[in-house]
Amino acid sequence: MNELKKLEKILNYTFIDLKNLKEALTHKSSKFNYNNERLEFLGDAVMDLIVGEYLFKKFKKTNEGDMSKLRAALVNEKSFANMAKNLHLGEFVYISTAEENNGGREKPSILSDVFEAVMGAIYLESGLEKVREIAIRVLEECYPKIDLLNLAKDYKTSLQEITQSNLGVTPTYELVRSFGPDHKKEFEIALFINNTEISRAIANSKKEAQQKAAKIALEKIKH
Amino acid sequence: MNELKKLEKILNYTFIDLKNLKEALTHKSSKFNYNNERLEFLGDAVMDLIVGEYLFKKFKKTNEGDMSKLRAALVNEKSFANMAKNLHLGEFVYISTAEENNGGREKPSILSDVFEAVMGAIYLESGLEKVREIAIRVLEECYPKIDLLNLAKDYKTSLQEITQSNLGVTPTYELVRSFGPDHKKEFEIALFINNTEISRAIANSKKEAQQKAAKIALEKIKH
Repeated sequence: MNELKKLEKILNYTFIDLKNLKEALTHKSSKFNYNNERLEFLGDAVMDLIVGEYLFKKFKKTNEGDMSKLRAALVNEKSFANMAKNLHLGEFVYISTAEENNGGREKPSILSDVFEAVMGAIYLESGLEKVREIAIRVLEECYPKIDLLNLAKDYKTSLQEITQSNLGVTPTYELVRSFGPDHKKEFEIALFINNTEISRAIANSKKEAQQKAAKIALEKIKH
Repeated sequence: MNELKKLEKILNYTFIDLKNLKEALTHKSSKFNYNNERLEFLGDAVMDLIVGEYLFKKFKKTNEGDMSKLRAALVNEKSFANMAKNLHLGEFVYISTAEENNGGREKPSILSDVFEAVMGAIYLESGLEKVREIAIRVLEECYPKIDLLNLAKDYKTSLQEITQSNLGVTPTYELVRSFGPDHKKEFEIALFINNTEISRAIANSKKEAQQKAAKIALEKIKH
């Protein structure tokens, strides 16, 4: 029982009924006659809404397609496994000895499921506001820099794929100028395809400016 | 504006800010400089949680896999379009003349999106409890008989597909016995593949017993 108190401290949440926490921590490999799959089902939907709403409110001007991509980057096994590690859930999960010897406490699938199930259990007991508070705290600790740059990563790659397959060339990026004080420098990048300038963008880093330029070029290509 | 009052009456909900309702009703084909895609993004996650939680609480013994199937049967374009029709949303949606002439007010994709967006708008204004109350009312009106039989429909078909492709035979079902008082009769069905009994099941109707027997047979085949 002391173990569970430790986890409650990490979560900064005291369960109304510890049975709910136990169920959430129980992997199906354990010998108990219950497991966390139902709570995981619930917690999955809870996290989808919490993260979706978080992005909706944080990015007021972002379209639905970009928000979906951002959410997909945050709501997945790898990301939830990270959040589970932030809460040390691996130390608390109930698994079979076989699974344990097989590195079960480190497995992203097990960690992700247990994270969802714990969120589902808190939701069930205390409602959306309480679980949102906990989930967002963990989310922000794991992803202090949630921004559209995460998304943008794909723009350069996407553009290159298109130009290579359609034109057999790779876009090139050139620094046009940098300006502003040292602590707040800005960079303007021009993007060329076949030596023709397609787009320009300004950002706080060269990388970001390249991504922005690639995004604009992608939009131009679409139309 | 009178139009919107009519819709509020159907919803049995008065919007705090009618701008939210207008945004939710605005299809991207309209001439406004906003549309319902962001609210749809939010409403989609809201509905996933509401329906997931509804099933979680209604089917306390059902495993995660079956709940996921049930949810998939309820959370999809066709089903949301039905719920939109229940609320007459097609009459209120703002669409372009071209889209209107193209039957837009009846299109499942437009109706489904507007349903999600309206639920998203109510959630945003008044929180989960309020929107849950409205969504569940509509859900139960559209699907008065949500039960595992909807799911079970697939078991007989699934089993037949497997036995036909692997063995070239179709399972047969035989009534073993019926028992109990007339108003509460129960039926026991045996399932045979190649004249070998594979499984038996009891239910309140022959159909349901066949489905249950098929489900058991499917599980046996898997192992």
